[in-house]
Amino acid sequence: MSAAEQSASKLKNESAIPAKTGSKKESKLQLQLKVPKGTKDWADKDMVIREGIFHSLSKLFKRHGGVTIDTPVFELREILAGKYGEDSKLIYDLKDQGGELCSLRYDLTVPFARFVAMNNIQNIKRYHIAKVYRRDQPAMTKGRMREFYQCDFDIAGSYDKMVPDAEILALLTEGLTGLGIKDFKIKINHRKILDGIFKVCGVKDEDVRKISSAVDKLDKSPWDIVRKEIVEEKGQSDETADKIGEFVKLNGSLTEVLETLKLKSELTSNELASQGLEDMEILLTYLQAFEVDNYVSFDLSLARGLDYYTGLIYEAVTAQSAPPKDAEALKQKKKSDDEDASAYVGVGSIAAGGRYDNLVNMFATATGKKSVSIPCVGVSFGVERIFSLIKARESKLSKEIKPFATQVFIMAFGGGPDWKGYLPERMKIAKKLWDNEIESEYVYKAKANPRKQFEASEKSGAKVAVILGKEEYQEGKLRVKRLGPEFANDDGELIEIDHVVEKVQEKLAEANEAGFDDITRLLRNL
Amino acid sequence: MSAAEQSASKLKNESAIPAKTGSKKESKLQLQLKVPKGTKDWADKDMVIREGIFHSLSKLFKRHGGVTIDTPVFELREILAGKYGEDSKLIYDLKDQGGELCSLRYDLTVPFARFVAMNNIQNIKRYHIAKVYRRDQPAMTKGRMREFYQCDFDIAGSYDKMVPDAEILALLTEGLTGLGIKDFKIKINHRKILDGIFKVCGVKDEDVRKISSAVDKLDKSPWDIVRKEIVEEKGQSDETADKIGEFVKLNGSLTEVLETLKLKSELTSNELASQGLEDMEILLTYLQAFEVDNYVSFDLSLARGLDYYTGLIYEAVTAQSAPPKDAEALKQKKKSDDEDASAYVGVGSIAAGGRYDNLVNMFATATGKKSVSIPCVGVSFGVERIFSLIKARESKLSKEIKPFATQVFIMAFGGGPDWKGYLPERMKIAKKLWDNEIESEYVYKAKANPRKQFEASEKSGAKVAVILGKEEYQEGKLRVKRLGPEFANDDGELIEIDHVVEKVQEKLAEANEAGFDDITRLLRNL
Repeated sequence: MSAAEQSASKLKNESAIPAKTGSKKESKLQLQLKVPKGTKDWADKDMVIREGIFHSLSKLFKRHGGVTIDTPVFELREILAGKYGEDSKLIYDLKDQGGELCSLRYDLTVPFARFVAMNNIQNIKRYHIAKVYRRDQPAMTKGRMREFYQCDFDIAGSYDKMVPDAEILALLTEGLTGLGIKDFKIKINHRKILDGIFKVCGVKDEDVRKISSAVDKLDKSPWDIVRKEIVEEKGQSDETADKIGEFVKLNGSLTEVLETLKLKSELTSNELASQGLEDMEILLTYLQAFEVDNYVSFDLSLARGLDYYTGLIYEAVTAQSAPPKDAEALKQKKKSDDEDASAYVGVGSIAAGGRYDNLVNMFATATGKKSVSIPCVGVSFGVERIFSLIKARESKLSKEIKPFATQVFIMAFGGGPDWKGYLPERMKIAKKLWDNEIESEYVYKAKANPRKQFEASEKSGAKVAVILGKEEYQEGKLRVKRLGPEFANDDGELIEIDHVVEKVQEKLAEANEAGFDDITRLLRNL
Repeated sequence: MSAAEQSASKLKNESAIPAKTGSKKESKLQLQLKVPKGTKDWADKDMVIREGIFHSLSKLFKRHGGVTIDTPVFELREILAGKYGEDSKLIYDLKDQGGELCSLRYDLTVPFARFVAMNNIQNIKRYHIAKVYRRDQPAMTKGRMREFYQCDFDIAGSYDKMVPDAEILALLTEGLTGLGIKDFKIKINHRKILDGIFKVCGVKDEDVRKISSAVDKLDKSPWDIVRKEIVEEKGQSDETADKIGEFVKLNGSLTEVLETLKLKSELTSNELASQGLEDMEILLTYLQAFEVDNYVSFDLSLARGLDYYTGLIYEAVTAQSAPPKDAEALKQKKKSDDEDASAYVGVGSIAAGGRYDNLVNMFATATGKKSVSIPCVGVSFGVERIFSLIKARESKLSKEIKPFATQVFIMAFGGGPDWKGYLPERMKIAKKLWDNEIESEYVYKAKANPRKQFEASEKSGAKVAVILGKEEYQEGKLRVKRLGPEFANDDGELIEIDHVVEKVQEKLAEANEAGFDDITRLLRNL
């Protein structure tokens, strides 16, 4: 270290001290350098994995004939009103700064239905990958955020019964397996069967929705607790509760549970339930044609919270997304720290959806248009949760991916009193490569020493170096060589400057044959 | 029409009438089926073009070594405070619903600087394609929206002078030409030269920023009007105003204007201006190396509104993005309708940026960290404006692109009393094709007639049909044929069911050889 450097370093350290003291004293007045609660910055390798997930899902959606749309991140407040039941309190509102009252979207389904109604669309298969907003208690480690991405695919239009529903379940399976997730099952149920069951068990029409949301808790609470809620809080008789208990404990393969239910004559004689059972029978045939029936479990305790579902409902869960057996104990132990405790609960469903046949019509009629019938069915993939699973499962991933696309690093070597560093010359080569769509970088210094240039090239992940030697370049030549430890002793090839693009392309083709480049393939092969 | 159909149709018409009447009566109570002011839904072919622009720009950014990050759509309100000068009034705030006060981001630059400061990053080349929000007066047709996309590339870190700046200008040129935009120029200027000029002309330090923003209006107003503002509103002497006028009228090639300025000894003796001139001299060498100097015009009237710029500034404009000569007249004529009038003004700059060397440090010091030096330079592409240009220029584009990726349509033909429509069979074939990543559709009907199936395949844009003939399929065979008018009389090839994937791939390869598939290539070749 030179004297000047030492002095500079000392100065830096000194200036650090008062700043630190200051930061304690004025902490309340100072700006907080953070992102809002429940949000995060995405960067580096995490960003690459997430983009890989988006890429894989959008290819999936396109493969099934989907077109994409993009709606505004905020909607008129009244568009969202009355669509989410109890969860409406989680909606973010924009401040009234004059003009219209708006809120951030809570999901992509309601804006989609608004779009379909507004444009009088009769049928569409649309996908939409975008952020949604919920003022929920965040639990970052299990992937529950206030700002998060949803990847939705929905089919709107009048078609033969259960045909789009079956395709959505096939697509859901294809989507998850395509991301290397294999140990999942799809719980399915039917709102009409569920409503039929409640009726048959003696629940009054006006109580159906609230009993339904009590039953929905069965994935987190044992029957005893749910039963207590049904009797004590929701005012049902013991007999009704026990009858409900008999039904909602049922689950198994679609074939088995269908057989069981068809034997219950009180259920089959209920109009709603009978329609639902017929739907499930048709669905079975199609799921068998798609060979996805083995992923499906008919689970009568699945109820789904949202108001707008009218038919088939489903949720994909993995072994990791279910809460572990000792979740309660861990929660108790950790209860001083909300966020950490929730890390021990599963990530919840990783994809979910259902049929909602009246939502588009709600918009049409609420705005004075005539009544329309635009039945819809769709699925939403929870990217943050899928990301958490992939990330937790495979640390190998992190080693093999890099956030840079850089393929080529351009360097110049020389010396002596007349050595200027060949910066404009490196720029010229970079321009040639960029113009041929080759990802290229060089060090942003007029004169850079060889070690610094090699370090930078290593950091960038470049596979090929273009080297401008002082004398060689004056003779119209440069060197193209492979990078990486196995090429440390390889001097590369000395070529005419004019041939740089072809030679680089050739070396890159060699390098990429061996290498890992397709993040989608990587995710899939986990 | 059957009697039942007639009756149904009559009912529909009847129910339409009261609904329509109702809509007039209750218009104030009713829900409005619209998106918030200044926002829009993107769909169909527009969406394809926009995705093509994103694809082209993200490839560009990656080519230059960029990594991408994603920051939350809202930031703590205090992070945005004091960064945008007068424009701060255009920031959207979130409602105070308890907890932190947040605002929607106004640009991607301030969140980027916050990210760099928060993570103590020493250097990064990052790109970010995302929406930003401004409560401005919208002018949809010229691409000015309240919610719009920015595509930003920024280089942060200490490097040799003007090296990153030159690369940003090379990247800007490459980005626009890569999108088929050729008739543009990049106006450049330097904040230090501008500030030096104002000093030399007799402007006091505290008046510099307001004189700068008056000068910035020269792209929309003639000198007379700006001069009047400088003298009457901004309180400068006639002599000062005239001296400023001499300078800011200068524009031309970088070489020419540099020569002119270097002869003005009062300017070169000003410390700030002299630093700026030295920068421009170095820049010239690098722009020549990149062969982009011919796109650049040194324009001393360019000032840029934002507070945070400290060095080189630039704005790309096209012939179409400048206001037409009769803009004022058209504005007068149309003044009853704000939105339409603004359609006659140019779209403004299509990309812009500059150097901002103190922004990261502002965050560091404001939060009690020690002072850092993280100089930054960047550019932002205005996608909506670029989109408007491309869309207005080329109607041919609309004919050649389709929003669907569908390649194959699966159909079944048959008849007779035992004909069931082969729906599960079509599903099986679809599944095979999807599993091989081939985009495939079929009609969602158990029994569909040939005409309906051909119509649907035509709408989807599929290039190949897989046809399940009733008897042929029973013999283990199906037909694969090309679609399109020139193949109307082609019966296709009858093959074993097991060979469907290979045969489809073969026919698709034939079809795609001729066809237009790469939207980027299409945009570029306009």
